Amino acid sequence: GVLGSGDFARSLAVRLVCSGFKVVVGSRNPKRKASLFPAAAEVTFQAEAVKKADVIFVAIFREHYSTLCDLADVLAGKILVDVSNNTEINHHKESNAEYLASLFPACTVVKGFNVVSAWTLQSGARDGNKQVLICSNNQEAKRTVAEIAQVMGFTPVDMGCMSSASEIENIPLRLLPAWKIPIFLALGLFLCFFTYNLIRQVIHPYIREQKNKLYKIPIEVVNTTLPCVSYVMLSLVYLPGVLAACSQLYYGTKYRRFPDWLDQWLQHRKQIGLLSFFCAALHAVYSLCLPMRRSHRYLLIETAVKQAVEKKMTIWVEEEVWRMEIYISVGIIALGLLSLLAITSLPSIANSLNWREFSFIQ
Amino acid sequence: GVLGSGDFARSLAVRLVCSGFKVVVGSRNPKRKASLFPAAAEVTFQAEAVKKADVIFVAIFREHYSTLCDLADVLAGKILVDVSNNTEINHHKESNAEYLASLFPACTVVKGFNVVSAWTLQSGARDGNKQVLICSNNQEAKRTVAEIAQVMGFTPVDMGCMSSASEIENIPLRLLPAWKIPIFLALGLFLCFFTYNLIRQVIHPYIREQKNKLYKIPIEVVNTTLPCVSYVMLSLVYLPGVLAACSQLYYGTKYRRFPDWLDQWLQHRKQIGLLSFFCAALHAVYSLCLPMRRSHRYLLIETAVKQAVEKKMTIWVEEEVWRMEIYISVGIIALGLLSLLAITSLPSIANSLNWREFSFIQ
Amino acid sequence: GVLGSGDFARSLAVRLVCSGFKVVVGSRNPKRKASLFPAAAEVTFQAEAVKKADVIFVAIFREHYSTLCDLADVLAGKILVDVSNNTEINHHKESNAEYLASLFPACTVVKGFNVVSAWTLQSGARDGNKQVLICSNNQEAKRTVAEIAQVMGFTPVDMGCMSSASEIENIPLRLLPAWKIPIFLALGLFLCFFTYNLIRQVIHPYIREQKNKLYKIPIEVVNTTLPCVSYVMLSLVYLPGVLAACSQLYYGTKYRRFPDWLDQWLQHRKQIGLLSFFCAALHAVYSLCLPMRRSHRYLLIETAVKQAVEKKMTIWVEEEVWRMEIYISVGIIALGLLSLLAITSLPSIANSLNWREFSFIQ
Repeated sequence: GVLGSGDFARSLAVRLVCSGFKVVVGSRNPKRKASLFPAAAEVTFQAEAVKKADVIFVAIFREHYSTLCDLADVLAGKILVDVSNNTEINHHKESNAEYLASLFPACTVVKGFNVVSAWTLQSGARDGNKQVLICSNNQEAKRTVAEIAQVMGFTPVDMGCMSSASEIENIPLRLLPAWKIPIFLALGLFLCFFTYNLIRQVIHPYIREQKNKLYKIPIEVVNTTLPCVSYVMLSLVYLPGVLAACSQLYYGTKYRRFPDWLDQWLQHRKQIGLLSFFCAALHAVYSLCLPMRRSHRYLLIETAVKQAVEKKMTIWVEEEVWRMEIYISVGIIALGLLSLLAITSLPSIANSLNWREFSFIQ
Repeated sequence: GVLGSGDFARSLAVRLVCSGFKVVVGSRNPKRKASLFPAAAEVTFQAEAVKKADVIFVAIFREHYSTLCDLADVLAGKILVDVSNNTEINHHKESNAEYLASLFPACTVVKGFNVVSAWTLQSGARDGNKQVLICSNNQEAKRTVAEIAQVMGFTPVDMGCMSSASEIENIPLRLLPAWKIPIFLALGLFLCFFTYNLIRQVIHPYIREQKNKLYKIPIEVVNTTLPCVSYVMLSLVYLPGVLAACSQLYYGTKYRRFPDWLDQWLQHRKQIGLLSFFCAALHAVYSLCLPMRRSHRYLLIETAVKQAVEKKMTIWVEEEVWRMEIYISVGIIALGLLSLLAITSLPSIANSLNWREFSFIQ
Repeated sequence: GVLGSGDFARSLAVRLVCSGFKVVVGSRNPKRKASLFPAAAEVTFQAEAVKKADVIFVAIFREHYSTLCDLADVLAGKILVDVSNNTEINHHKESNAEYLASLFPACTVVKGFNVVSAWTLQSGARDGNKQVLICSNNQEAKRTVAEIAQVMGFTPVDMGCMSSASEIENIPLRLLPAWKIPIFLALGLFLCFFTYNLIRQVIHPYIREQKNKLYKIPIEVVNTTLPCVSYVMLSLVYLPGVLAACSQLYYGTKYRRFPDWLDQWLQHRKQIGLLSFFCAALHAVYSLCLPMRRSHRYLLIETAVKQAVEKKMTIWVEEEVWRMEIYISVGIIALGLLSLLAITSLPSIANSLNWREFSFIQ
């Protein structure tokens, strides 16, 4: 049974019919809404629909849950699946599913399907392994809903008892939470190093020698800033592991919890490492662009003209040649190794490595 | 039970035996074929094999289905699994599975396993989540075959009733259908812009000033063409979304189907976007190669020599310097952002993002 | 039931409780250990725990299996799940699971869960499709354990009978076995070509003309070596397919096994191809870095000065210009095509292609 006639209710009905279930839809105006649903689904009044179904998907907004109170008698003993989402994280004190359970104490409430979009329901789960997170206080009801999800082509994941409902309801609302701190960290570091390099390469020569080097800001100053950020970020990836080991040695046990800040830090290592790689890759591209610049061309020609006028034939400085060759060579090798690290952090590749292989590559 | 003794029949028998099933193989010449099958599988005459099995995999070509008609009596009531493929899309009017069902009306026919190769059957489904698409008019039979697929290590996907059979049979024959239109579009755009740039950069100077600039064709003309293609493709990614929104506003409803051309366009956005990124990346590589060219070197030396002979020391043009610095800088940033878009379109990463995160990155 | 109180035992208990199972933990010192386990799990003496459970996870080291012999009577008839790992590949003659089975002939032993880390158990299988490989001689016991794994959120994979146990136990110990031969091959080829190029570009000019060109070693010599390695590796990807086809034509059958060396070679093609791509990509980066070098700058200026002093205005060599333009142009296109090949070898993309599409791209 499906209660509701919105986008999600209709996509759900379509998919259930396609998966071979007998579907009955409950609506307050069945005649007008019938055309919206597939022909195989029976559209009728809410009370009638509830009577005919054992498992009922409640595809209406939390605000309208109370309108179902008239149906409390017919709903008694049925399994209600709460598929609702919120518009803000922790908008209400109790999760939608717990609120529904408190309204209908005679029903078994299962939270699920809210992480799946109407679009995914319609197009089928053929591409990728779409997971459906499920929780409930009743094991039997949970298993029934998990089986329905499996027949529909989804991978049900048991998330334990009802208290996980608010966690599940927050999932579709999260916005890259693991990336926030690392990104602000990278921006902060970039600003610091950028200011330092700006003073050193542009402002200082201007004050001391009145030389206008403002043209260096968009590329050269950025390009000296990026590797600094990249290095500091890379060291921040490996530092917390060392700190954690020290803490374990100091307390003589590995069963003591780390302090919260260290725990957070340890969990953000992957994101910090990827941002470090991103900065290193940008630095490589910026460096490669250096000889394309007009300023590079002008300086080169100026030097050549000056030498020619002075009839100075050789300008070869062996030390500078070697320094640059080694600098570029080591830079390329470092970038190649960082690329390998970045590739192994792709989910599909990380999943195919065992723990020993992963730590070997690290 | 398995009917047939080809590659697929043998791989199927091997895998079924490995998964702990009792397998009986039906062959017209059991003595000669027995050596091809694993020892644990019993190889016998077709009629006998059919008698002993409840689920029978029909691993023979559609052309030979009629040879089974002698077995119609013993086959009655059994589940027949059609695993056949065609050599051309929509080769026959009705799908192989429907044809088999029409030959044996007393049997329950299930379509399945045709999207799995003999190689995958043999090597096991250990790497990746290999799906087996299943359809049938009989729910019970479908569930039985789905369970067999699951025990064999595959992920069964219910595709509904028998009318989906021809769709399932076409899957192994499709050849990147979603890429055809975007690729021809990109090629068309490339040709147009290439012709324009060829006339502008090579033919026009030749006619007007008799200058031979043919050497520009392989790199410079291509390099000015690529970003044009990339820009137009990128705008074609976001344009249909705007058109769709306008159409919804105009008709005042979001339940009206879009016209077919708009629907097609909306579905090809990802491919168009990836081709746009590919052109942008190629443009970046071409641009980086510019200073490596002999022509660049010769022109540089020529300018230097000319300046030296004329004793003209300074050639610095502040405006040109700035234009180039900003052009390169913005180009790098654009490429970095496009790279992020391209990475999030990898299936394994797209699956780990929720809808809000995906649209934020877009 | 869980026997043991190490990291793995506790993570297992936590996960089983979260998935809604009733868990009883057997320990030799239940009072001291109880605090380590979740409150919902009952911690008691080993004999009592075994009595209460039907499926018992043996989470203790192989060395201590014999300490369980006192429990042989209460264990009789139960399903024992061996979750142990070794520290070395093929450390013992028989696998841990077979050893456990020999100690308790009255029990049904199932091997499983050893490929999952304590960390994955705790964090849940939410990201990625974590597989649990299972084998046993008893189909019924295997199915029971597979169902437990599924409820816990893992994907059980049936690996057949007990003789596969040692294979399963070796999986967490393997260290990129498919990469060893290709990497040594690439290193060997690199050394050969590097020596040749070193002699040709540095040692030969030094002996013949006393010219010091040592500065060429870190970049130029490496850069001429990389494409040679890449080409040879690429040809090694396609050569075994040709040899296999010849062998099939010669013997007139495709059912004859290939010789072992050819079989090995065929299975390493993907890794050889990716290393070929890696060398090609490095070659591209090295080439792009060439104009950034000091030596390039000095040689350019020297030429310009020489020309200026000699008042030689034109140095344009049409043939050299064209050679370089075409060389770079073809190089970029080759790199673009190799990138496509490399991208389609990512597991998540390879899984979404059918056989026809894969061979088309190849």
